Amino acid sequence: MIGLWLQDLGLSLRKDLPVPEPSEREALIKIDLAGICGTDLELLRGYYPFTGTPGHEFVGRVVAAPGAPGLVGQRVTGEITIACGECDSCRRGLQKHCLHSRTLGIRDYPGVFAEYCLLPVANLHRVPSSVSDEQAVFTEPLAAALEILDQVHILPTDRVAVIGAGRLGLLAAWCLSLTSCQLSVVARHQPSRDILKQWGVQAIDADQMASTSYDVVVEATGSADGLKMAANVVRPRGVIVLKSTYQGDITFNISAMVVNEVTLVGSRCGPFDGALRLLDSQRPDLSAMIAGIYPLEQGLAAFDLARQRGVLKVLVQPGDAQGAGFKGR
Amino acid sequence: MIGLWLQDLGLSLRKDLPVPEPSEREALIKIDLAGICGTDLELLRGYYPFTGTPGHEFVGRVVAAPGAPGLVGQRVTGEITIACGECDSCRRGLQKHCLHSRTLGIRDYPGVFAEYCLLPVANLHRVPSSVSDEQAVFTEPLAAALEILDQVHILPTDRVAVIGAGRLGLLAAWCLSLTSCQLSVVARHQPSRDILKQWGVQAIDADQMASTSYDVVVEATGSADGLKMAANVVRPRGVIVLKSTYQGDITFNISAMVVNEVTLVGSRCGPFDGALRLLDSQRPDLSAMIAGIYPLEQGLAAFDLARQRGVLKVLVQPGDAQGAGFKGR
Repeated sequence: MIGLWLQDLGLSLRKDLPVPEPSEREALIKIDLAGICGTDLELLRGYYPFTGTPGHEFVGRVVAAPGAPGLVGQRVTGEITIACGECDSCRRGLQKHCLHSRTLGIRDYPGVFAEYCLLPVANLHRVPSSVSDEQAVFTEPLAAALEILDQVHILPTDRVAVIGAGRLGLLAAWCLSLTSCQLSVVARHQPSRDILKQWGVQAIDADQMASTSYDVVVEATGSADGLKMAANVVRPRGVIVLKSTYQGDITFNISAMVVNEVTLVGSRCGPFDGALRLLDSQRPDLSAMIAGIYPLEQGLAAFDLARQRGVLKVLVQPGDAQGAGFKGR
Repeated sequence: MIGLWLQDLGLSLRKDLPVPEPSEREALIKIDLAGICGTDLELLRGYYPFTGTPGHEFVGRVVAAPGAPGLVGQRVTGEITIACGECDSCRRGLQKHCLHSRTLGIRDYPGVFAEYCLLPVANLHRVPSSVSDEQAVFTEPLAAALEILDQVHILPTDRVAVIGAGRLGLLAAWCLSLTSCQLSVVARHQPSRDILKQWGVQAIDADQMASTSYDVVVEATGSADGLKMAANVVRPRGVIVLKSTYQGDITFNISAMVVNEVTLVGSRCGPFDGALRLLDSQRPDLSAMIAGIYPLEQGLAAFDLARQRGVLKVLVQPGDAQGAGFKGR
């Protein structure tokens, strides 16, 4: 089959990959649409030493499931952590934090920038028929954004800031807007500002933030500067949600966190079922975030576009190569 | 009056200090007993550029209160933040986080290593008659330790570790033991281990901690190493309570906090009323923490003792110089 292949920080297109064979616990999925995420770009920069097919945001159809034949034909998306089911975390019900986890397209498990992928049946979620492929492919990052609402109790009276309006910052902003909080998003690039405007969310410049005034600040830049800014604008006893990973160690004044009794909440993957329900019930217009849809054969070009500053979601579409074509906006 | 005086990082004993005059909102307090805290030692190292009488842990008697004459004669202790009452934080009820605060013996307000001090009447708490001076002088640090229970919901089934068994670590351990959680305290020095044993709390070595296994970790060392250790032993989705300030910036791997969805809670001052109720009802034996009681005239020697490694609480006692004497253990 055709698929992208990451090795020694180099990405290539391969046409000789074997179609993987599902075990009794796994399903074989034919990928309909896959999304490029910041983590994929970081893998290419060496964030984690992964060799294989990257990619973890997808929607597809089950084509084989030896242990659960009823799933065949279902349109699905899936959780990205492959849990061992036996460690302390798994026994606590924290499979997402399995101590021996593999991660779809990130660690020790091949990903979705290919014609087919595997996933444990336990990881799959059916996609409601009302949700299009172009919406369903956002399930994983939308779930990650939704995790904020799981972790922090946000009131309609809260002043909330999101720093950074990239892929995840925008989805965080959309989720936060559901709480009716007083929301401001620091957005630098015009495409993101346009989308926020369309969603009725206030976009501001960094220098429009007032110091020590936000109840909750979501840091979605993944930069030391973003974290510093968050620390400056959060109110005493407020909450900073860390929504991005950072390259290497970060140096900062943690004493200020103690003196101001600020809480830092690390936030990662979230509830797929909730994200799918929201896609079904709220019908967010996420299509404006799609900067381009590339056939899998042009996957390298898709990555080139995704790397550009200010570019939001780039999708990759396996399938009939004749039919597929560049659908970039 | 006699008092200690901090200037240009040097501490001296002065006998020419004027007895301060209370405003309509303040009380004049005759100090019975005052405690040396880690923050006092940090002030001497330049943590904050303070000139004046340091000290903020005390018990004393009100000798004048122009606006509240009924207080005269009462035995009191007091909250250390002098709030403006008008800023955003004060209007939110977060006077401890007043944006224009002064702090008793730490910032812009003279402290308690003297025969007399002032405090706003609103800051005072009466000490129950059952609580001795030697217990009451622990009210402020005990309240700070108690703040942990205010901020984190700790269950009897939780595994909790305290890293560091200095003054604050020990008090944190005592407060945590009230929750019946499964508690381990990393303690290096024998005096602290002896006290923990007396309280029925398990003392362990750093290398006895299991990785990713504690629901809550209280970092009470104020060192980068302590924070690193806390990050290693907290479980995914667990909580690290930061109970100490740190000198300068700290460099650490904040991505691990994100990936493991760890929450960092900055924790500082706590509830005085609660601390006094516990001193009254639970009668903790804190006397073992007292390494020495020095008359105010020997305040410099008291600081010399407090600076030594493994030494816990050193108290300073103004009052009749003839009667007072070294009561060190």
